[in-house]
Amino acid sequence: MRNIFIIGAGRSASSLIDYLLNKSQTEDLHLTIGDLSLELAQKKIKGHPRATAIAFDIFNEQQRKSEISKSDIVISMLPAHLHFEVAKDCITYKKHMVTASYISPAMQELDELVKENNLVFMNEIGLDPGIDHMSAMKILDEIRDQGGRILLFESFCGGLVAPESDNNLWNYKFTWNPRNVVLAGQGGTAKFIQEGTYKYIPYNKLFRRTEFMEVEGYGRFEGYANRDSLKYRSVYGLDDALTLYRGTLRRVGFSKSWNMFVQLGMTDDSYVMENSETMSYRDFINSFLPYHPTDSVELKLRHVLNLEQDDIQWEKLVELDLFNSKKIVGLRNATPAQILEKILSDSWTLSPEDKDMIVMYHKIGYELNGERKQIDATMVCIGEDQTYTAMAKTVGLPVAIAALLILNKNITTPGVQLPINKEVYLPILKELEEFGVVFHEKQSSYMGYNPMNVVS
Amino acid sequence: MRNIFIIGAGRSASSLIDYLLNKSQTEDLHLTIGDLSLELAQKKIKGHPRATAIAFDIFNEQQRKSEISKSDIVISMLPAHLHFEVAKDCITYKKHMVTASYISPAMQELDELVKENNLVFMNEIGLDPGIDHMSAMKILDEIRDQGGRILLFESFCGGLVAPESDNNLWNYKFTWNPRNVVLAGQGGTAKFIQEGTYKYIPYNKLFRRTEFMEVEGYGRFEGYANRDSLKYRSVYGLDDALTLYRGTLRRVGFSKSWNMFVQLGMTDDSYVMENSETMSYRDFINSFLPYHPTDSVELKLRHVLNLEQDDIQWEKLVELDLFNSKKIVGLRNATPAQILEKILSDSWTLSPEDKDMIVMYHKIGYELNGERKQIDATMVCIGEDQTYTAMAKTVGLPVAIAALLILNKNITTPGVQLPINKEVYLPILKELEEFGVVFHEKQSSYMGYNPMNVVS
Repeated sequence: MRNIFIIGAGRSASSLIDYLLNKSQTEDLHLTIGDLSLELAQKKIKGHPRATAIAFDIFNEQQRKSEISKSDIVISMLPAHLHFEVAKDCITYKKHMVTASYISPAMQELDELVKENNLVFMNEIGLDPGIDHMSAMKILDEIRDQGGRILLFESFCGGLVAPESDNNLWNYKFTWNPRNVVLAGQGGTAKFIQEGTYKYIPYNKLFRRTEFMEVEGYGRFEGYANRDSLKYRSVYGLDDALTLYRGTLRRVGFSKSWNMFVQLGMTDDSYVMENSETMSYRDFINSFLPYHPTDSVELKLRHVLNLEQDDIQWEKLVELDLFNSKKIVGLRNATPAQILEKILSDSWTLSPEDKDMIVMYHKIGYELNGERKQIDATMVCIGEDQTYTAMAKTVGLPVAIAALLILNKNITTPGVQLPINKEVYLPILKELEEFGVVFHEKQSSYMGYNPMNVVS
Repeated sequence: MRNIFIIGAGRSASSLIDYLLNKSQTEDLHLTIGDLSLELAQKKIKGHPRATAIAFDIFNEQQRKSEISKSDIVISMLPAHLHFEVAKDCITYKKHMVTASYISPAMQELDELVKENNLVFMNEIGLDPGIDHMSAMKILDEIRDQGGRILLFESFCGGLVAPESDNNLWNYKFTWNPRNVVLAGQGGTAKFIQEGTYKYIPYNKLFRRTEFMEVEGYGRFEGYANRDSLKYRSVYGLDDALTLYRGTLRRVGFSKSWNMFVQLGMTDDSYVMENSETMSYRDFINSFLPYHPTDSVELKLRHVLNLEQDDIQWEKLVELDLFNSKKIVGLRNATPAQILEKILSDSWTLSPEDKDMIVMYHKIGYELNGERKQIDATMVCIGEDQTYTAMAKTVGLPVAIAALLILNKNITTPGVQLPINKEVYLPILKELEEFGVVFHEKQSSYMGYNPMNVVS
């Protein structure tokens, strides 16, 4: 029997644990699920005979070492900054490790040691990062294997609400960490390359420089630039590509509306507002508007944002109940971002019957045998319910599949890795298809940045 | 004979040194001017028999201790972060000290020691901080001494170009540190109080929320908010004032135009641009605009900024030669802010015959004997030439006057101080008038934020 130790039984672990429990008989597995909350861990294993739930504290060194030493592979679903403690013990006891998180510099430094011990530390194998790497590399490798040259690489991903649950003017609900949504785009200028030219978008213009795209059967989406479009340039072998752009997907219109918050200063997380606990939602807005002895908050806001009376932006603000003078923020020493998150959560929290949706889009332009071509690859995944969400599936399943592939010695290349090699991505993408995670590719001639062939 | 040791012979030291040299006979003074550049120090003393110029390195401990121990008072015109080394030695050798810089936390911590040694460490006694403190406190104290209650305090200061040298569309030239001008408003949301309500302005709106004011004989100015309007709230005794606002003055129209750079992302100092050394001014602009196969940089910029063909904003950009594809930036690994500073310096550097101008404006609303009143106090100082600039006069003279008052035991309160007490500000403001630094006060009834008495 092979022991898999899973640390963290939170939202993204449901599909992961189910996958491994389903395979536990045929693959002769035993799972130990450790979480600070024993109850949560127990809930996830549903009394399965091949699984043990334990209360687990990552900072309890003795327990940590004991559990890791008893396992054959460790899956860490902890917050990214906690992986390192696990990683060191995994080296000590010579255990493989899997995470869905970005490789931290500290983790990268372990590469030598991991290789010396002939271990596989697979990271960035969730959704984004994870499925994005694998699906992109599959297309890129196929083109290059035929002798093609990549001209353009654009990649977008978004966690959204499923069409059947999409019932607000923003076409958006929080399906993952709301805080990350509120802070999106902060912390540095977005940098990318378009047709060989470096381009920079400051935060205050980020949500006005979007790109549209169509996903068959699901309508139009828009993408805004990530900060780090060039991060995987060399990793993906795209040093010569003329265009590199990575972004986040939303329904068309979201960014224009979100920009109102950015412009007003409501997404700022760098300072604490005075009297945040007792202020009303209306006070919150008014803090960002000039004082006037008689003009209403409503008129001042319309004026600052230049909203005409029939502008849909206005309706979106009203839908959030932003002008309510009775609703109190109730957060002590809160930043604008924290207060905005609270206000949005009133409206954007998923109802029990709501479903989420993941959309991924790769646009790849290339030259092959003197012809310029383009592949548009799209993947849409809709959640089943609030436990088996699209997010839980797309984050957890690749982790689970990878763990089993490593246990079964199908993935053997040692070191601190991310899933960019065929050995890894081919079997995982194939198996993901059984779970409905399917990419649809559309071939066309290269359209680049002039799809309508407009002449000057 | 009393020895004054002046460290730093830069731009702001000219008027300072001249003042003390002129007094050196009657007051029996000897000046030692130390600067890294012996030549610069020599130039400033012009062979005066009561002055010695020396090459001085603040990091040469032996020399530092030796010079300080020989002096009766030390004036440090060094960059603010270097005062601390001087301050420690001043305590060791029991010497008074004067600086024009903000009191750093490290300097503040010396307060006990300074008091124990019965020394005066006078700081923030230049222009801003300096004359602003003194002139504001004089008016506030006068009102309060009569039993008045302060309702509103607004204070603005700007370093500008004199009307006779004001010959560009921006009505602006660099008269001090250009880098500070480019970075103005960054590093935190502007926070202030208006009529009892805390208000916040994010950077991207800072230059659109200006306030206008008129200075008799000099026309209209506009002010944008400083980050730190509440910094002196308690120091000035204004904890109960309903409105507190501190700002920077520019000619009307400057902020609207400057906002173009902010919106495009050109003032960002947080990252280095690719190929900054070889890019042209035109490339620089284009980095912040979307790619297009045929549209010109000009059209893209007009579109992004929504500039009509006859918009004066456009002429201002053309005046800076921003679209020139031949002019090369020539700065290695430069940030957008550094590049912008370079481009602006081409146009905004003072010519040898140009003069600068300092404008200060205090607006103070108060209630006295049941009546609501207002004082508008303004000061305009115009430079003589490029050596005796308005900036050098207004920064250096209060420092010099304070040093002499301390030497002559007219200022005796010990400790780490700023000039908010009558003992300090009354004689200094009085003597400054002889040098043309005069405040004009206008009394009126209180107008607050409804000067036209508009009704809803």
